[in-house]
Amino acid sequence: MAVHHFSPQRFFNTIGPHAPELRIADGDSVVAATIDAHGHDAAEAQVGHNPNPMTGPFHVEGAVPGDMLAVTIDMIDMSRRQGWTRQGLAPNVVDPDQVASLPPREKILWDIDRNAQRVSLRSAPESLRSWTVPLDPMIGCLGVAPAGGEFISTATSGPYGGNMDYRGIRAGTTICFPVSEPGGLFFLGDVHAAQGDGEIAGTGIETSAEVHFTVRVVKGKTQTWPRGEDATDIFTIGNARPLDQALQHATTEMLNWLGEDFGLDPIAASHVMAMAVRYDVANVFNPAYSVACRLAKSALPTRG
Amino acid sequence: MAVHHFSPQRFFNTIGPHAPELRIADGDSVVAATIDAHGHDAAEAQVGHNPNPMTGPFHVEGAVPGDMLAVTIDMIDMSRRQGWTRQGLAPNVVDPDQVASLPPREKILWDIDRNAQRVSLRSAPESLRSWTVPLDPMIGCLGVAPAGGEFISTATSGPYGGNMDYRGIRAGTTICFPVSEPGGLFFLGDVHAAQGDGEIAGTGIETSAEVHFTVRVVKGKTQTWPRGEDATDIFTIGNARPLDQALQHATTEMLNWLGEDFGLDPIAASHVMAMAVRYDVANVFNPAYSVACRLAKSALPTRG
Amino acid sequence: MAVHHFSPQRFFNTIGPHAPELRIADGDSVVAATIDAHGHDAAEAQVGHNPNPMTGPFHVEGAVPGDMLAVTIDMIDMSRRQGWTRQGLAPNVVDPDQVASLPPREKILWDIDRNAQRVSLRSAPESLRSWTVPLDPMIGCLGVAPAGGEFISTATSGPYGGNMDYRGIRAGTTICFPVSEPGGLFFLGDVHAAQGDGEIAGTGIETSAEVHFTVRVVKGKTQTWPRGEDATDIFTIGNARPLDQALQHATTEMLNWLGEDFGLDPIAASHVMAMAVRYDVANVFNPAYSVACRLAKSALPTRG
Amino acid sequence: MAVHHFSPQRFFNTIGPHAPELRIADGDSVVAATIDAHGHDAAEAQVGHNPNPMTGPFHVEGAVPGDMLAVTIDMIDMSRRQGWTRQGLAPNVVDPDQVASLPPREKILWDIDRNAQRVSLRSAPESLRSWTVPLDPMIGCLGVAPAGGEFISTATSGPYGGNMDYRGIRAGTTICFPVSEPGGLFFLGDVHAAQGDGEIAGTGIETSAEVHFTVRVVKGKTQTWPRGEDATDIFTIGNARPLDQALQHATTEMLNWLGEDFGLDPIAASHVMAMAVRYDVANVFNPAYSVACRLAKSALPTRG
Repeated sequence: MAVHHFSPQRFFNTIGPHAPELRIADGDSVVAATIDAHGHDAAEAQVGHNPNPMTGPFHVEGAVPGDMLAVTIDMIDMSRRQGWTRQGLAPNVVDPDQVASLPPREKILWDIDRNAQRVSLRSAPESLRSWTVPLDPMIGCLGVAPAGGEFISTATSGPYGGNMDYRGIRAGTTICFPVSEPGGLFFLGDVHAAQGDGEIAGTGIETSAEVHFTVRVVKGKTQTWPRGEDATDIFTIGNARPLDQALQHATTEMLNWLGEDFGLDPIAASHVMAMAVRYDVANVFNPAYSVACRLAKSALPTRG
Repeated sequence: MAVHHFSPQRFFNTIGPHAPELRIADGDSVVAATIDAHGHDAAEAQVGHNPNPMTGPFHVEGAVPGDMLAVTIDMIDMSRRQGWTRQGLAPNVVDPDQVASLPPREKILWDIDRNAQRVSLRSAPESLRSWTVPLDPMIGCLGVAPAGGEFISTATSGPYGGNMDYRGIRAGTTICFPVSEPGGLFFLGDVHAAQGDGEIAGTGIETSAEVHFTVRVVKGKTQTWPRGEDATDIFTIGNARPLDQALQHATTEMLNWLGEDFGLDPIAASHVMAMAVRYDVANVFNPAYSVACRLAKSALPTRG
Repeated sequence: MAVHHFSPQRFFNTIGPHAPELRIADGDSVVAATIDAHGHDAAEAQVGHNPNPMTGPFHVEGAVPGDMLAVTIDMIDMSRRQGWTRQGLAPNVVDPDQVASLPPREKILWDIDRNAQRVSLRSAPESLRSWTVPLDPMIGCLGVAPAGGEFISTATSGPYGGNMDYRGIRAGTTICFPVSEPGGLFFLGDVHAAQGDGEIAGTGIETSAEVHFTVRVVKGKTQTWPRGEDATDIFTIGNARPLDQALQHATTEMLNWLGEDFGLDPIAASHVMAMAVRYDVANVFNPAYSVACRLAKSALPTRG
Repeated sequence: MAVHHFSPQRFFNTIGPHAPELRIADGDSVVAATIDAHGHDAAEAQVGHNPNPMTGPFHVEGAVPGDMLAVTIDMIDMSRRQGWTRQGLAPNVVDPDQVASLPPREKILWDIDRNAQRVSLRSAPESLRSWTVPLDPMIGCLGVAPAGGEFISTATSGPYGGNMDYRGIRAGTTICFPVSEPGGLFFLGDVHAAQGDGEIAGTGIETSAEVHFTVRVVKGKTQTWPRGEDATDIFTIGNARPLDQALQHATTEMLNWLGEDFGLDPIAASHVMAMAVRYDVANVFNPAYSVACRLAKSALPTRG
């Protein structure tokens, strides 16, 4: 169970079957530097470019199509003291007849205070002079090479993961992807220091980071959409437009998962889901929106 | 500040400018019986009919168009020991090509245990033999007469409220509606003993109840969509299809509210919302879907 | 088969079970004045108000719930020489990030020339100096009282018809509605001198008119959504948001109609529809969008 | 102006910057064989595979990013006597609660009669015994390499074209794509012998063909979405889900085009579009839906 320290020499703006940058074994851990959505690294040097330059791909030995790749996020360390957002809400999240009154979407700087575990606006308007945000790092874009030989822009997402911008992808979360290419070819990047639901300003607090993660290959385990878990919940993610369809994908994946691994037929699963499901609107900004379907482990029946 | 005990003699399947059943004063409280979505009362007698028969309307003295009616839910008492759901997920919440594999949507009975504060399936499948759900009562349908002389089916919802089926409308919550008719004309009903996000089986645990609520008229306070608060959060609700549009309405209402009452211009509001907003998918089943946009009070800037 | 000349004394801004303004027999014809969407009549006097004031309701003797009411539009006569539109496209029909560049939506006057059968801008910009539009009158809003005792704003539409703003509702068209109240209670108004698909500026050329129509009761004929025909085609209309759902309603209604009246089972109907269906985007502006599903009569199999 | 006869040796299931299979000059014509959506050629031999194997790419000399590639479809010759469809409507085009009653989607054979210019079911049900369809060939999938180094599945579509399944892409049509890679890299395939709007059974009549086309490079001409024209109309195409967004893209592209090339500012363009626009629902089945926004040339103002 090796631990690899990986300093990327190049970055990718598509997720696809690029040649691996590092080969690792099932069970290995990696500490990998990521750069921000516009390509700036820990030293604020531009080393990659828009959109969402990816670190990787990591080839995981033994992963073949038909397997599942489980990635556990062990830690997300901030690697610089600064991040940025866009001001103003995105035009697609407000009523069309109010769009014309939105402010121009300028780039805004934030200071990241790792000691205080808070993030604050560098130049706050009067009304936000004493307002700060808890540091709560998440990975905006991560996934594996898609099926069918596609190379897909890191602006969007699909069954293979991608730019889901879900605040639930934080330290302590394990997320699983369907393997479509030998080695899986795992990519990650686009860390946010904090973000609310929906990424409704079109950004989180975009920054660079050092991400610690561990991979595991689950043999012969099929799935359609990302599945995952954290300390309290299991979850699935659907990526599509409109939100209705993203929610349909996430719901269907959960229904199928409860049948496969939790012994719940469609009737039993419907009772549990109808009473306990929680939906997170991960992003409602990217070309594909992302919805997570969550179930508290405490709401699941105990297994006989 | 009187407390009225109201036993409805008739029920309404449209929300609109019906003649008031009870006149109450600003600040008064009411203890009102509600019947279940199919019209069965506390004694399980059929006294109303599908869909969602309403108790009310309550005419609040002094409320006139241009005011806001704030309704605080003080308590929701279960008035019988039984509720029902439909089994199987609703066809519109799963992928279209998996709809044909859904089970038939039969009516299922649940036992409500007020002492244990749990609800359980009367005839559980093997896999759910020891599985129960916390009792967490909510009001599925409530609102005031809409603008323009409309009488709208209690199956759906709009700016005036209606069948939003939001689990956030529970004891301790205050919800505010725009007054469009003299007296506001408040209706309520369709209590659920418990329900997850989205009402994805098409029902919560449908039952009768005794609801304790208090009304307050806020003079000259305009709004477009329902606004509310509970112990921890403020929230707005948008009702529309698809989810994207419901989310747009809720987001726009929050943006406007932060400007009107919290001193946050569109730039400052965008910072707060981008970092702290939470969306609840209230229902994704009814003719209009409902999305709540929530902000923790702790995430709001302190006022100077 | 009487012909009634009807001069409305009052107008309605909701479609619902209002008391009839005129009782007519099955097979009768009516010549009825309609006023424009903002309530101006043939003399440009304001006699009704926004939105879409309706002429009617007409009670058709013998029509009872479970019947179908067929209305044939015999002629739409322009009753004045002027109409109006809004300039600028509606914000919901362009990409959200281009909304801010749309022009202000001012009211614009048009001249209706019945001799030339053309309509022209009263104050045309240089680029449209010699540009005119064929006069092609249509009825924007028409329908019958909805089910369940609802009174619904004439801004929107549903299974009962309403503000569908479909340019296919012109002279020579027959449209059929499901009867939900005794007498059906037929309303009409909101005539446009011309309009493209989608009503994408939010208006057609809004004007007053004299509409000649004939009613027929079809006993015991159920349907869910409006059905109709003209010289060349049969059609169904679905009203909902988003367009996808409006299209689903129209498609499902056509599928069912082909089964009921044309002897085509779901497989045969799918062949005919897959090869010959045409969709019209009637409106993509109102609270409910409208999509027509059309089949040329020449594309239907001949009956054995 | 050479004419190239191209017999593809390999086929592509992604559209992207693959190495060119043929280099041609600006103004050249090509006669190229295409195979059907499942990879069967004129001899019904399987030479490619699902989905939509592409002929090409064709590198057009002189085309560079920032140019527009105009492709005129000169002729679409049927290269075999047989095609196939799926029976039954696609589950996403009917109401969710009617999906379970759809027939199984079996593969069905059709006979193509080039002399009679008709297509007929090989084994017709009784109700369709004498029913045939006009031969009206169209190209289901065509486009150029997308921007950003993406390789995208031929199941879907985007600004670069792709699997739009639009019956308007027939002989006599010119369609223009934005060039993102040197040479443009044009692909085509997935010819249908006939198809209605929307591709609502999930297929047209899928077959092989010989397509005659001519390319032209328009220097320094930017656009976002495909533009085109035929004998009577100009058109734009938007590709996205839901239909609303596809329509927004097509509408916005037309608005911009009228400004750039027809001298119509947003106000003038809104008048023309509001009165004359026609929308075609090209496909409502693929991962991205396609909507065409059309204007009759006769409805455009004459240029001063």
